[in-house]
Amino acid sequence: MRVAFQGEFGAYSEEAIIMHFGEKAQPVPRPYLKDVFDAVENGEADLGLVPAENSLEGSIVRTFDLLLERSLKVQGETVLRVTHCLIANKGVTLGDVKRVYSHHQALGQCRAYLDGRSLEAVSWYDTAGSVKMIRDEGLRDAAAIASTRAAEVYDMAVLARGLESDNENYTRFFVIGDEDIGPTGNDKSTIAYIVDHRPGTLLESLRAFASRSLNLKKIESRPIPGRPWEYTFFIDIEAHRDEPLMQEALEELRESTNFIKILGSYPRVQ
Amino acid sequence: MRVAFQGEFGAYSEEAIIMHFGEKAQPVPRPYLKDVFDAVENGEADLGLVPAENSLEGSIVRTFDLLLERSLKVQGETVLRVTHCLIANKGVTLGDVKRVYSHHQALGQCRAYLDGRSLEAVSWYDTAGSVKMIRDEGLRDAAAIASTRAAEVYDMAVLARGLESDNENYTRFFVIGDEDIGPTGNDKSTIAYIVDHRPGTLLESLRAFASRSLNLKKIESRPIPGRPWEYTFFIDIEAHRDEPLMQEALEELRESTNFIKILGSYPRVQ
Repeated sequence: MRVAFQGEFGAYSEEAIIMHFGEKAQPVPRPYLKDVFDAVENGEADLGLVPAENSLEGSIVRTFDLLLERSLKVQGETVLRVTHCLIANKGVTLGDVKRVYSHHQALGQCRAYLDGRSLEAVSWYDTAGSVKMIRDEGLRDAAAIASTRAAEVYDMAVLARGLESDNENYTRFFVIGDEDIGPTGNDKSTIAYIVDHRPGTLLESLRAFASRSLNLKKIESRPIPGRPWEYTFFIDIEAHRDEPLMQEALEELRESTNFIKILGSYPRVQ
Repeated sequence: MRVAFQGEFGAYSEEAIIMHFGEKAQPVPRPYLKDVFDAVENGEADLGLVPAENSLEGSIVRTFDLLLERSLKVQGETVLRVTHCLIANKGVTLGDVKRVYSHHQALGQCRAYLDGRSLEAVSWYDTAGSVKMIRDEGLRDAAAIASTRAAEVYDMAVLARGLESDNENYTRFFVIGDEDIGPTGNDKSTIAYIVDHRPGTLLESLRAFASRSLNLKKIESRPIPGRPWEYTFFIDIEAHRDEPLMQEALEELRESTNFIKILGSYPRVQ
């Protein structure tokens, strides 16, 4: 099974693929998040795995924007414990390092470490990709933030470990594909919707679920392009879309909204 | 009046300062958002101006994190129409440009333009700062995304204008300082709170405002470090904290929350 991910070999997303699917998965690297969606849509991969949120830095908003734009479904979720290392070319010491490259999410998770040492943070497209770049360019005054696995993949030195601001550092990923997954009895649904632009509509929309004891796990808002200060809401509800109470709630939700898209129902992990 | 902002001279934040305060303001540049807070706290500036949200890319989440951590208040808001230019050294043509540097928010607002031309996007700490860097380094294969004003400040060439994915591109800024601002009759409050970790609490918290016809303008969630999958909510309510109905709502909100911080009440612009 080919599973596309954003980044280079050694990225946290690749680690999450191996953890979730085991040895049967063949990870397929792609430079940008949209390329992961393209790979699955074009049949270059069977599934994709994309980051949804991090417990320190919050939502990966581009993933939600893409789920809204594209037709792929969320078919699963998985959670990876993330431990960041400072990685450099062999022979480079901590004192040599002036600049640190990584994905801006990883830089954010290590902000206290970087600030405390007055290291310049440079945002790069990928964690493992920044290790690769530092190796390819032979940089001696720079380091990357990535996983121990990335250091191994590119045969680089680990200067420090556990750079994240808090130990409780987890990233939640979505498995994306073109199938709707049936109910397992312990599921979650991710839903996007737009409420009418009048007072009280967000509250009404949430009441549709709460009045049926359907638990809201997460709410995220994203701006609507072309309609300043209006938002699409993304919610996670602890139920499968095929459950009767959920069907009722969605029916009620349709009364206070002018757009609903069920991004997927999938077995609950977290 | 000295007003600190994040970035270099020519940044959009500086433009917002001039628009909001006029000629009486003296803009004080600082490299990172936290330095803007520091500058006001240390008395190196009288006020600060920081981006809160963009109508295409969403919230500037680091601003909300800092408002939560620090003691400065939101004293005002202002909205700037943002038009992005592609800026390069003189003599450089569009065909020479391989990489484009800018703040990741600006890169996000111009994603369709960059993707359509297969330009590599490199995230930098500031829009105007990327223009300055390209000038200082004399780069001939790179350009920056920033304002026309940034091009003028650094005497650089504008290769293209209006790069944003949608014309309706606005950034909303907060004025921050150490004073509580009194009511004007047309105000807004920004409030951060954490609800108890049990089903239905978010709904309860919003009902405190909706049942009093206090209009919710925006809701944003941010993860709580050390407590994975729990969130701090940031809401904008159309009322001043001193208004009686708002006082009642805050009283009720305290029943379903274990943390409330009023980040500020200020004259409503948007």
